[in-house]
This record gives sequence, C-alpha cells and structure tokens, in this order.
Amino acid sequence: MPVQTQIGLMSHEELVAEHERQSANYDRLKTEKLTLDLTRGKPSPEQLDLSAELLSLPGEGDYRDAAGTDCRNYGGLAGLPELRAIFAELLNIPVENLVAGNNASLEIMHDLIVASLLHGTVGSPRPWSQEPVVKFLCPAPGYDRHFAITESYGIEMIPVPLRDDGPDTRLIAELVAADPQIKGMWAVPTYSNPTGAVYSEDVARALVSMPAAAPDFRIFWDNAYAVHPLVEDCAPAIDILGLATAAGNPDRVFTLASTSKITFAGSGVSFFGASADNLAWYQKFLGIKTIGPDKINQLRHLRFFGDADGVRAHMAKHREILAPKFALVLRILEDRLGASKVASWTEPKGGYFISLDVVEGTAKRVIALAKDAGIALTGAGSAFPYKNDPDDKNIRLAPSFPSLDELATAMDGVATCVLLAATEKALAD
Amino acid sequence: MPVQTQIGLMSHEELVAEHERQSANYDRLKTEKLTLDLTRGKPSPEQLDLSAELLSLPGEGDYRDAAGTDCRNYGGLAGLPELRAIFAELLNIPVENLVAGNNASLEIMHDLIVASLLHGTVGSPRPWSQEPVVKFLCPAPGYDRHFAITESYGIEMIPVPLRDDGPDTRLIAELVAADPQIKGMWAVPTYSNPTGAVYSEDVARALVSMPAAAPDFRIFWDNAYAVHPLVEDCAPAIDILGLATAAGNPDRVFTLASTSKITFAGSGVSFFGASADNLAWYQKFLGIKTIGPDKINQLRHLRFFGDADGVRAHMAKHREILAPKFALVLRILEDRLGASKVASWTEPKGGYFISLDVVEGTAKRVIALAKDAGIALTGAGSAFPYKNDPDDKNIRLAPSFPSLDELATAMDGVATCVLLAATEKALAD
Repeated sequence: MPVQTQIGLMSHEELVAEHERQSANYDRLKTEKLTLDLTRGKPSPEQLDLSAELLSLPGEGDYRDAAGTDCRNYGGLAGLPELRAIFAELLNIPVENLVAGNNASLEIMHDLIVASLLHGTVGSPRPWSQEPVVKFLCPAPGYDRHFAITESYGIEMIPVPLRDDGPDTRLIAELVAADPQIKGMWAVPTYSNPTGAVYSEDVARALVSMPAAAPDFRIFWDNAYAVHPLVEDCAPAIDILGLATAAGNPDRVFTLASTSKITFAGSGVSFFGASADNLAWYQKFLGIKTIGPDKINQLRHLRFFGDADGVRAHMAKHREILAPKFALVLRILEDRLGASKVASWTEPKGGYFISLDVVEGTAKRVIALAKDAGIALTGAGSAFPYKNDPDDKNIRLAPSFPSLDELATAMDGVATCVLLAATEKALAD
Repeated sequence: MPVQTQIGLMSHEELVAEHERQSANYDRLKTEKLTLDLTRGKPSPEQLDLSAELLSLPGEGDYRDAAGTDCRNYGGLAGLPELRAIFAELLNIPVENLVAGNNASLEIMHDLIVASLLHGTVGSPRPWSQEPVVKFLCPAPGYDRHFAITESYGIEMIPVPLRDDGPDTRLIAELVAADPQIKGMWAVPTYSNPTGAVYSEDVARALVSMPAAAPDFRIFWDNAYAVHPLVEDCAPAIDILGLATAAGNPDRVFTLASTSKITFAGSGVSFFGASADNLAWYQKFLGIKTIGPDKINQLRHLRFFGDADGVRAHMAKHREILAPKFALVLRILEDRLGASKVASWTEPKGGYFISLDVVEGTAKRVIALAKDAGIALTGAGSAFPYKNDPDDKNIRLAPSFPSLDELATAMDGVATCVLLAATEKALAD
C-alpha cells in the first residue's frame, strides 16, 4: 500500500504509525528469504542470447579479413580495419584514430594511466609517478571502477557535481586552469553510469577548450553506452576528437568504448580512440606488452555485425528487453515512493542504471536493510570517489540482470527499505 | 658446392679463391629476388589449420562450464577451472596455483613488472619504482621481448651465460647474494628461445634455493615451450613451485605459459602460476584493470582439447610439421658450413628456434647480406640485452613459418652469406 502523504509533513503520531506499517512490511519481506542481486550492470541471459551466433563464428575456414590478414597468427597491434570502421562510424571517430583491442576497455584505461605514471604521456614534463601529487576530477555520481583505478595508484580524486547535461564546466575550468597537478578527468558522456546524464555538445566543447595548467591534462571519455538507448532515438555521438582539435587541444581526449554490453560482457572487443600522437604513444607502450589483440574475436564480431546498421539493429533488440525493466523500476518507485517525497531518481534514456537518492543520511541504512532481506544493492557510496557519498543518500540501481518478476519483488523490497529508513530517520530527528 | 676445408686453415690464395666463389654465389642469390622471412617464431598456416575447429567452437548453445558458470558474462578473474586443470597437469603446477588469462602471457609478465614497479610485490620493502636502481639477470642468448620489457622501464639488464642445461648458477648465486638491487631474472626453462636449452632439475633447484639479497627477488619462469618437443619424448615440466617451497622461497617464482604456439598465435589463452600469496597480490592488481578474462575463449579451448592428453596429441601433429623443417635447416647448415668450421649451431629437441653462431664479428654483416638478398633474419644482437651481442656472432633462426621449399632456399642463402662474411673477415684480418 503506497504512502499517500509526504513523510516530512506527517504529525508525530502519523509518523509512528507509518514507521510501524513499514516495519511490518519489512518483517514480511524478510520472511520471503529472497536472494536477488541489483549490484552490477550485467546483461541478462536473455540479452546474451541475442549474440548466440558468436558461439560458432567466424566458422571453419573463415580466418582472413578483407585485407587478407590471417587473423589466427600474431601481429596487428591496431586491430582489424573493418571492425574499427564500424565503430568509427558509431562513435563518430575517424577510423585512423580508432584501434581495437581485447575484451576490456577498462584495461585500456588502466594501462593509459599506468603508461602515464611510468613514462608520462604526450606533452608530460615528466612521468606522472615523479610528480609530487597527481589529481583527477571525478564527476559524481560516477563509475566506481574508474575511481578504483585512480585510487589504487594514489591519484587524488576531486569530486565535481554531475548534472543532467554533464559536469559543472565552470567549476572544472577554474580547477583545471589553476592546478597543474590536475592531470585527468573521468567522463561517461552518454547515458552516464549511474545517472543516465548525456553530456551536451556545449559541455563537451567547454571541456576540450578550457585552458589547462597541466600541458598533459587528459579527459578519459568513456563512451561505454554510446549505442545503448532505452528510447527509439539514440543520443548522437559527439565528435569529441574533432572538437578538441578545433580548440587547439588535439591530445586532450582519450576515448574508450567496448562491446561488453553489446555482445558478450566478458568476451567482447574494446576500442581506444585518440589523436595520432596519442595513438603512437599508446602503441609504443602496447607493443612492449603484447604482440597484438585477439584478431579472431574481432573477426567474429565483424561477421556478426556486418556493418554499423547491424550494431544498431542489434541494440534495438537489447532495448526491447531492457526498456520494460527500466519502466518497471520507475513505476514501482513512483507508486511506492512518489507521494511520500522521501526519494528522487533519474529517468535515464539509455545505459544500465538508475540513480536513486533517498533521504539524506539513510542510504547506508537502506542498503543494509535490503541486504538483510536478501536484496543485494551496490555498496553505499560506490558512485563517489573513495566511496564517500557526502550526503549518504545515493543508491545505484542496476535493473538489467534480474527477470521482470525478480525485479518487481526486489524493487518493492527496496521501496520498503527506503520508507522504513526514512521513518526511522524522521523519528530520530 | 660445399666448402671442404676449414677456412681458418686456408692459405691466402685459397682464401681469395674461396671469397670469389662465395661472392659469385651471393651475386647469383641476389638475382633470385627472394622475399623470405625467418625473423619470428610464427606458426605456419599449416600449423594453424590444426586448430580449425576452434573457429566454430564452443558452438551455439554451449556457454556454461562444468560449474554452471555462464561464460558469456562478466567475472571470474581466475579463469575456467577445467581449463586450468588441463594446464596444471601439463605444467606440473597445482591447479589452485594456476590462473588463466587472455591471449598473451607476455602481457602478464609485463603487468607483473608494472605492478612491482608501482606497488611492489610480495615482500618488497618499497615499490620497485622507488628503488635507486632495479636490475634483472638475463640469461643470454635469450628472448628479445623479455629484454624489451625490462629495457622499456629502465631496468638494468645483466647478461649471464646460458648453457645447455640452463644458466650459470654459480655466477647467478654470487650476483644475487651480493646485490639487493637484483630483483628479477628472466628464464625460458624448456626448449629455450633461441638455443633450445632445457634447464636441468639441478639448475632449477639451485635457482630457487640460493640466498638472495633482495627479499623480493623473482624468477620469471616463462615455460612458453613446455609441451613443444621436436622429438617423441617431451622434457618433463619441473615442479618449480614445489622446489621453491621446499627451499623455503615459495614466492620466488612467477611461472608463465600460453597456447600461443599450441592453437592460434594471436587468439590463445595465457596462464600464470605462482604461490597463493603471489596470486592474491596479482589478482588484487588484476581486479582493478579488468572484470575478468575472455571465458568463452577459455571454454572454446577446453572443448577443443578435452584433456591434457588432447593437448599432447595435438602437439604431436605440430611436431610432424615442425620436425622436418628443423631437420632441413640442420642438414643445410651441416652440408654448407660443416667442413669449413665457420659456424656452430644448436640442435634443439623442442621449441621454435635454432641459435647459429657465425665467425665473431660477422653476424651483423651476415644479416645485412641476407637482407640485401631478400632474406629477413632476426636483427643482429636480438637475443642479448640491449641488442648487444658482445661477440657479434649470434643469429636466431626461426624455421617454423616458411614452407620447406622456401626454407631450403632461405637457408642455402644464409649459408652463402655466412661463408662470404667469413672469407671477407679472414682476408681483412
């Protein structure tokens, strides 16, 4: 039964009664002995089934690309030209500026930082590891695995607010102009993790144009969800390298993408796009650690997609599976939490997450309550640098993996936890 | 026509005549306008064809391992238990000490060094990058890509002589006991690149037992050719982790292997074996850079091999293709260079290379002559740290890729170049 009144407007008696109702709800929830998992943005088995053909591709006898390269053998650091061409079109990056790698763009991002630490990147006065301190700007809420990379290397993370059209560029421009130790910035420009924010072209232009005190300031433009709309029209990929070049900062942007949420999450192809100088620098590093990527897997993906329209058609099938799950979550949030005004949430047009803000100071409590009821949510604060959500209010919801039935049960449970924590807090205040 | 006399014993007139004969041979060689390549240890197309089934494996509907894991999705840093078990048996490493990765063991070696530089490894007093200097021992001749990794990070490389049963352990023990900056050592214990040396168990025991001044001294035990004999009986894999543990140095050894020269060179599976503490350290690093390896490719390999005997049977087919090529090279070397005593060479029982020693001071000249005649050989000095062959005499021959006909032509040409350079040198001395 939904709460019809704003909790903040309830009398003490109403609040006590509401708290008792939600406590009873929660006790019932616990008797269901659930084991549901909303922690990670994993594709569901049904989504993975969309790529079933990959399991028998490229097929016996098929191992040469159009250039005649025997993809079974060593070599070819840049990856298959034909596959690069498909993603060059989708990502709005010239094909000569885009290389294809193994199964994880996260690994490329990690390695770009490692190479910058140990060698310095293009334009670095010295290797980053020889700087007194290296700082990164972290639009937040953001992607926990980004923050884990910078944290693991002792890079100081500075949170900056993320809005619906991207991060606060005025604040960023001030920080970057003033501090030469700010060497980088994380960004998920399309259907961002976890809010679903889509960077506007104005924001993108501001980011690549602003003066930077560090000559080697880099934006890690992780376009992980570039072709992952939940609505009919996909947000267009911004010509970020072109904008950077036009602004006189051609080397400022490292762009990343992968097929992890297009085909098989663990067995896809990653992409790295950057200026010619950045690519040459990266490939010099890459050529020391490997003789080349898995070209057969790239050929497999090439055969599966055919062309960029093949990718788009494939993503439409993902959307058919994902959109109802997101709609269900939003409906339950509205039904259970709308009138009580104890929470707000994003309504993303793409990507893999919904960002839920509960009553300040209760996110940890909600997540703990849910855990005790068998509903696993992403750890509190995960979307913030150092897992430090200053308001203890943000919860990342990942609706992709569970079935619709499981999702309904889980979200109903989450709503109960949100209400219980909110009434607890209101009574304690 | 073979040279029947030792060049060192020829009179000046005989030498002049021989030089003229070889010059004429070489001029004829150049008219053939060859384009042959003996540079790298690449499998031939015929060898790659042995794994043709992989191109359509695991097959539609097959994506779960025996534990029920959906290999298409994220996760599983350690790799598939069943595939790890196969290579645990072949490499003589307990399965719990062996993890499976992506397509390049070179990448794992590189990353082990990167992690040691940036974090320090188990037992390190500080990250290696904070040491005044880091040194590695490099048995030589050795693998050029090993040396490229250490060189790229400014690690000082100290060559140590490689013998038929492994490197000079007395020298190594002295160096390692005295110098705490010696943090590591490269090793290719089975059918070594390029000499074919097989480390004896005594050598292995000495290496893992000797006192080391550095508490974090590591042997990079790259068992790249563990199951790659050219004869019927394969050299047994030494229980190197067991020996190290018995000697009280359980963390001293990082073992590496891959299927690069078993299935597809660019699309195989890599393996890393080490103590539990070393694995925990590595996986902590690995978990920051990736969510997991390509498990579908691991499942593909599991289905293809079935079990360890499947790998052995498969390697017997490689041997049928490779052994005649090695025999051909050895026959031409003996026929053309045997009597003249201007060269010596290894007769490996496995692996991918033959190490040819020509007259001191002529290896560069031989390689240049061959290049001008359209025969590409591995760069002079490649098998030595800093590409510095102190005697300018070593040439690595890679017989695997060319066809038998091409190989015969190439090796006959190489022999001519060796003789021409030798007579030039003798006349100049």
